[in-house]
Amino acid sequence: MTTTQLNQLAHRLNQINDLSKGEVGQNRLVYSPTWIAAQQQIIQWGLDLGFQVTVDDFGTAYLDIPGKTNPEQVIATGSHIDTVKQGGRFDGLYGVLGGLEALERLLDADGKPSKTLRLISFSEEEGSRFPETFTGSKHYTGQSINLAMRDPDGISFEAARQAAVSKLDLPGVNHNLPALPVTFTELHIEQGPRLIDHHLQIGLVTSIVGQRRFTVTVKGIANHAGTTPMNDRADALQMAVDLISDLRKNARQVDPQLTFTVGEFHVSPNTSNVIPGRVDFTIDTRHEKETVLDQFEQILHQVVETPRASKITSSVNRWAKSDATQLDQAMLARNQAIADHLGFRSSQLASGAGHDSQIMAQMTRTTMIFVPSINGISHAPEENTSQADLERGVTLLTESLHQQAY
Amino acid sequence: MTTTQLNQLAHRLNQINDLSKGEVGQNRLVYSPTWIAAQQQIIQWGLDLGFQVTVDDFGTAYLDIPGKTNPEQVIATGSHIDTVKQGGRFDGLYGVLGGLEALERLLDADGKPSKTLRLISFSEEEGSRFPETFTGSKHYTGQSINLAMRDPDGISFEAARQAAVSKLDLPGVNHNLPALPVTFTELHIEQGPRLIDHHLQIGLVTSIVGQRRFTVTVKGIANHAGTTPMNDRADALQMAVDLISDLRKNARQVDPQLTFTVGEFHVSPNTSNVIPGRVDFTIDTRHEKETVLDQFEQILHQVVETPRASKITSSVNRWAKSDATQLDQAMLARNQAIADHLGFRSSQLASGAGHDSQIMAQMTRTTMIFVPSINGISHAPEENTSQADLERGVTLLTESLHQQAY
Repeated sequence: MTTTQLNQLAHRLNQINDLSKGEVGQNRLVYSPTWIAAQQQIIQWGLDLGFQVTVDDFGTAYLDIPGKTNPEQVIATGSHIDTVKQGGRFDGLYGVLGGLEALERLLDADGKPSKTLRLISFSEEEGSRFPETFTGSKHYTGQSINLAMRDPDGISFEAARQAAVSKLDLPGVNHNLPALPVTFTELHIEQGPRLIDHHLQIGLVTSIVGQRRFTVTVKGIANHAGTTPMNDRADALQMAVDLISDLRKNARQVDPQLTFTVGEFHVSPNTSNVIPGRVDFTIDTRHEKETVLDQFEQILHQVVETPRASKITSSVNRWAKSDATQLDQAMLARNQAIADHLGFRSSQLASGAGHDSQIMAQMTRTTMIFVPSINGISHAPEENTSQADLERGVTLLTESLHQQAY
Repeated sequence: MTTTQLNQLAHRLNQINDLSKGEVGQNRLVYSPTWIAAQQQIIQWGLDLGFQVTVDDFGTAYLDIPGKTNPEQVIATGSHIDTVKQGGRFDGLYGVLGGLEALERLLDADGKPSKTLRLISFSEEEGSRFPETFTGSKHYTGQSINLAMRDPDGISFEAARQAAVSKLDLPGVNHNLPALPVTFTELHIEQGPRLIDHHLQIGLVTSIVGQRRFTVTVKGIANHAGTTPMNDRADALQMAVDLISDLRKNARQVDPQLTFTVGEFHVSPNTSNVIPGRVDFTIDTRHEKETVLDQFEQILHQVVETPRASKITSSVNRWAKSDATQLDQAMLARNQAIADHLGFRSSQLASGAGHDSQIMAQMTRTTMIFVPSINGISHAPEENTSQADLERGVTLLTESLHQQAY
């Protein structure tokens, strides 16, 4: 690492993030003008470095350094270029620009690789404009995607996609869907506090948690807060409080690592002098083992559906599920050895957030490298990672790609 | 009781309620066209019966049968003519028309009373158009009222009041503020389920509960539902659940009759995959003893303000308070004797809702008579009381007024 190299990564991060200048946080929603300008810039950097650049129908950009002896074997790295609304400076973008930095350093230091090195700048992962996530990696891996989606302004996915992708066909760019790589390594910020809290520098991701989301509906009887005696109430809110209290205890008993979040809570009629007649609340649970999620889901049904009061009914509905994904153990072990060799304080951990890697892992050997998030904050303008930690991630990625491709 | 008499009360109830025909429930908001038409009709019935009718500056109507020997001693009954939005057919109106029925029966059967008999049709009690309750009885008893109020459409209280009251000065009506009565008896529906649940026919009201409303604010830290470990959260909603659970237990321990209602609950950001950073919830507590309310309020501060987690703070703010009102014990005892004599199944109970009687009781000896509410429902179009129960209330009131005024 030299100061010049570090500055180049910081400079490129600034250049892309400056496209949202004057706004609150980053707003590179897929196929927006800011997104188009960002992806064009990534492509231009690839072209300037002499990489072979391909764009697919969804606007994902592939920047290749073709291999000398085994060009059909592709060693890939990358992440997504889009952000949530009012997002941070590193989520996704760090994996794209850190990967570009790694490829450039390898080309500079070691010349052409034996296998092909590929940087992927996925079009979309966050699901923050259209109601589907991971459309970039899903398209690359051949998963079906609902194309009949519209954004909140009523613009169709197809119209937005075609208009945006047509602007990426710069001179020298191939339009194509490349073959899948043999390995995929994603560099990303942790988005949580575990590394920073334990003064660690690198996280090696064992798995991406499975996730299930539910809505619990409690129906009682709305009534006068003054004239209805306490023992004659069918108070939906008090029942919801009991259910949440019990479910939280059960979640802890099933596994302390199981996350349990009641994020939404809606009361009807929501008036101070009326006993609530109905409450709907959401539960978000995540764990790296499907068996743990299965066990909790069974208890959830039991707890919610067991009658507790004669005039109150409760029900539960699961409306989202994504399976836990185990990442490649051999790739992780190699990255662990590199981290140890470089003297980086590291830990192996599961990712609580979803990533393109969980899609890629279904088709190819996949691993992830995390760097610490200051205060564990992400999806917010305050999202931050120290320069030294950003550099450690790139250093580890560079060595990992070198071992695989040369 | 004759069928003709019962029919007259039912007929008058229909006639006033038909003014809101085609709407959802009753909408006699103070000084509205429907309210004006209703109060004009009450006045007209009084004039037709030869009563001496007075209207005050706030639009309360006083229908008097002057006493033969002690006309300066006034025995009053009545209630309010206004309703909440989408209200029921009996709340307030039953006390006005039931009182008119009683006075008419007494005049028919016994001729002129010794003392003056007065029916009061209070202008307003519900606080459903302007942000103040009991303005009718407050004006009559000389309490100060904030006149600088506006309704949700921006119409000032003063403009609405003056325009409406000018329409009540029918020929034969005096405009004046009459002297206060020596007793006041209010006939009203219970608005709760205690009478109907216990197969009772009459409720004799010992007191009107004191009421206090609070908002509890819990501030934690909003964060990612997937990447923030369970032991590293500052989850405002989970803390709110614990507080509500503890406070409910405490309320029950202080007194099982203390009502405890969390009616409003607001979460921020209220998104399924974000740990809530802030929760605000309301508490409505009522009891007939101020000492019980004081005791709970002290515990409330203690429970909310005792720190439970390093990164979460909670605070409590009281924003409404009305004192408990003891009604006249001698008047209640006399009504109890009459109810027993008539063979009505009755109970003495505290009122959980506010009434004009709590204002009148500050200036004159006051009692209330309740009749059962079917299913305990009020402030809704479903509000209902059987014909037989309506008649029992009027019969008891008539005998009570007879004993006082003749």
